[in-house]
Amino acid sequence: MTEGERGAIGDLAIRLEQAVGARAILTEAGERERYLVEERGLFRGEAGIVIVPESAADLAKAVEICAAAGVGMVPQGGNTGLVGGSVTTEAEVLVSFRRMNRIRAVDPTNFTITVEAGAILADVQAAAAERGCFFPLSLGAEGSCTIGGNIASNAGGIGVLKYGNTRDLTLGLEVVLPDGRIWDGMRPLHKDNSGYSLKNLFVGSEGSLGFVTAAVMKLFPRREQIQTAYCALPSTKAALELLALARRRSGDEVTAFELMSEFSLSIVCAHAGGQRPLADPSPWYALIELSTSRPGEDLRPTFEGLLEEAFETGLVTDAVVAETIDQGQRLWRLREGIPEAQKRAGGSIKHDISVPVSAVPTFIAEASRAVEAYMPGIHVCAFGHVGDGNVHYNLTQPDGMDKAAFLAHWDAVNHIVHEIATGLNGSISAEHGVGLLKVEEIDRYRSAVEQSLMRSIKTALDPRAVMNPGKTVALGISSGAR
Amino acid sequence: MTEGERGAIGDLAIRLEQAVGARAILTEAGERERYLVEERGLFRGEAGIVIVPESAADLAKAVEICAAAGVGMVPQGGNTGLVGGSVTTEAEVLVSFRRMNRIRAVDPTNFTITVEAGAILADVQAAAAERGCFFPLSLGAEGSCTIGGNIASNAGGIGVLKYGNTRDLTLGLEVVLPDGRIWDGMRPLHKDNSGYSLKNLFVGSEGSLGFVTAAVMKLFPRREQIQTAYCALPSTKAALELLALARRRSGDEVTAFELMSEFSLSIVCAHAGGQRPLADPSPWYALIELSTSRPGEDLRPTFEGLLEEAFETGLVTDAVVAETIDQGQRLWRLREGIPEAQKRAGGSIKHDISVPVSAVPTFIAEASRAVEAYMPGIHVCAFGHVGDGNVHYNLTQPDGMDKAAFLAHWDAVNHIVHEIATGLNGSISAEHGVGLLKVEEIDRYRSAVEQSLMRSIKTALDPRAVMNPGKTVALGISSGAR
Repeated sequence: MTEGERGAIGDLAIRLEQAVGARAILTEAGERERYLVEERGLFRGEAGIVIVPESAADLAKAVEICAAAGVGMVPQGGNTGLVGGSVTTEAEVLVSFRRMNRIRAVDPTNFTITVEAGAILADVQAAAAERGCFFPLSLGAEGSCTIGGNIASNAGGIGVLKYGNTRDLTLGLEVVLPDGRIWDGMRPLHKDNSGYSLKNLFVGSEGSLGFVTAAVMKLFPRREQIQTAYCALPSTKAALELLALARRRSGDEVTAFELMSEFSLSIVCAHAGGQRPLADPSPWYALIELSTSRPGEDLRPTFEGLLEEAFETGLVTDAVVAETIDQGQRLWRLREGIPEAQKRAGGSIKHDISVPVSAVPTFIAEASRAVEAYMPGIHVCAFGHVGDGNVHYNLTQPDGMDKAAFLAHWDAVNHIVHEIATGLNGSISAEHGVGLLKVEEIDRYRSAVEQSLMRSIKTALDPRAVMNPGKTVALGISSGAR
Repeated sequence: MTEGERGAIGDLAIRLEQAVGARAILTEAGERERYLVEERGLFRGEAGIVIVPESAADLAKAVEICAAAGVGMVPQGGNTGLVGGSVTTEAEVLVSFRRMNRIRAVDPTNFTITVEAGAILADVQAAAAERGCFFPLSLGAEGSCTIGGNIASNAGGIGVLKYGNTRDLTLGLEVVLPDGRIWDGMRPLHKDNSGYSLKNLFVGSEGSLGFVTAAVMKLFPRREQIQTAYCALPSTKAALELLALARRRSGDEVTAFELMSEFSLSIVCAHAGGQRPLADPSPWYALIELSTSRPGEDLRPTFEGLLEEAFETGLVTDAVVAETIDQGQRLWRLREGIPEAQKRAGGSIKHDISVPVSAVPTFIAEASRAVEAYMPGIHVCAFGHVGDGNVHYNLTQPDGMDKAAFLAHWDAVNHIVHEIATGLNGSISAEHGVGLLKVEEIDRYRSAVEQSLMRSIKTALDPRAVMNPGKTVALGISSGAR
């Protein structure tokens, strides 16, 4: 930063302090650190100023000041994103939503909850449960991620198969726009066809069109019973047939269907305290959850019946249905332990692709053939929400290889995997979003028409490009456009 | 039309014929009539040219020619819309999608169907059913409306409570843009977070940002059993409590929950061949449908159990559960006969409002008090999808009043009802859309911020304002902005 830039930041801090109050500006290095560090160490932020406003009105004043000065602003919820969406540069202002975290209302008759953007996801779930309702968004970071971050990134998680992603759960929004105006779209309506769907433009836009400050989210009747099973499968094709069978036989009560490769189970057992739930190893496993909100219904006979049919037709070679809630949670920990186990198993190159559900077996087969040809000994640690066609096609380094040497292949391996996914009409960002990590790569895969549509929208709503600059949509023309 | 305008239309017709072929341009008055007449007689179109292209590529050429000439284009599906969205002026080109009506593919594993915009809704339902799947969009006009029209208007219908509206069912789109480029967004993906949700911008935009030419839609497992009941209710508050009870006790298998007033039932019986399903009249009725896709499941005991509880707690005073499919269909015809019965019962002033579900009783009470005070003897013919908060709050003329004299109060009555709905945080277009009918009225209820966001988007995507001009978004500044 030059002397002049430093002076400009100082002037801005004074004006922002007048707008939002001294308490809302963090100046101590110690206070600021939590906002700048990214857990996985892929990025390191450097915000010139960190503000923690207490209301949309205060934030709006701050945004107006920054916009007038042409200073970029970066929103941050729980700082748990996986694509660097809330990473700042030192010329930018970081806006944390930690102090705007109230649950404003729960309406069990309208099946809605009204929340501020900084509310922690687990707190939203708990507030819904207290009133006999169920908020289905659920993901690994739920103890610290915020609903505003979930909305900005259109978070997916484990319940998408039945309940949809965050977009499907969002009914109304309040947004501070790039010029400091506030859009009040907090309508708690299940149906509204009165013009363009502004709400859907902001959901998933990663703060690059405006900052979400509050939302009305959809709720569901409380779940009365949850049944979990862990199954050994001969192939990914069998997984798809088992999923279709489970949807049909359960009356579409499959709330999760998670695929795991043998390698992913083996490292959870080796490095993350997992215990094999079935005697013999199998190429693939599925963690299946059925649940019902019908009081007194027992899903166990349904589950056993469908597994029996699956067994007879060879879709499943072994299976265990959890006898207790505790046993069900242990099965879930096998799935949830994968990221931790991967960290301990050496270097990982990660992907968040989706393809049509019917193309999952082809994708996994082709990608595995290609990466194994590129690097013999590489381990396929694929897992994910196969019911949505979303595979976390992660790769772990060959045994004994140097970690840094392996990670040097990140871009090349990404390229191999992404070419195969997009060739199958897939996406290279199914649920984690674009952020900083994929902004160039995704732009390359967009058609020229799609690039220009994305840019038209960004420019129409944020003509000075001050909202989360450089994220989501590349404003330069990518040379790789096809 | 002046001589010069007529000449310009003639030149345009020649160029369009070169682009799309002679067969795709209709010149005979007889051929054109069906595209210009609106069934209810609220509007009469006058298109200078009617084209019926056979492919997106042909349409794209036509759009490029019209856009370059600054000529407005109006899309039309089955011509069944209720807000004049496909009404043309004589200086405009009407684009019919009747010849782009193929079902391209059904993928039962991915639970998707790929269709062209002009496919008839009932044909889409049938193609899904043939492959053991269920396409849940269902509405009165399904025998003639098109999926492209459903997408353009984000159609609702009777299954929204469980399956969502058309937006929720749309995975991918192909769109001819205002300059004649084609956006290929036909990704059959259940999850895709790779930038702004362009798809959601086009859904519900009524062709004002581009014309949808094809789509990938979501399917569900086939329904194995449907149970229907007709219940007498003492109040609208009881209806809401009954709905919540039904959702809880059925495990959220309520696929329809339609409210009817006594007046609406009485006119269906008087004018549309209905027969009272229950002995005594009641202020309100609910038509409830439970359905399951679980083979062998019998919902009847569940239905009877919940009605028994409702009976004991006074939520329901009488009820009949259909014994046969035929009897269930007869119950449905009571609901479906309302529009026809209304036509025969004299003049009607109609509304398509939504409010939070919990505010439905307040809305109906306040609106009824207000319209009865305004015009003693007016009949409240309210009915609708109360589970979504969507009430067709229709009003029938007082007995013996002159029809034209009654209809002269249209705007004044609209104003009374819309003020109450928006005062409850509601929408004045829940499912029918904006079109021409409500473009001014809706604009008045938008905040200045929302007006400017809508206009920014329209201007960014359609800078020459050639796509369905004058519909959806008013481009002038409305004086009533609040």
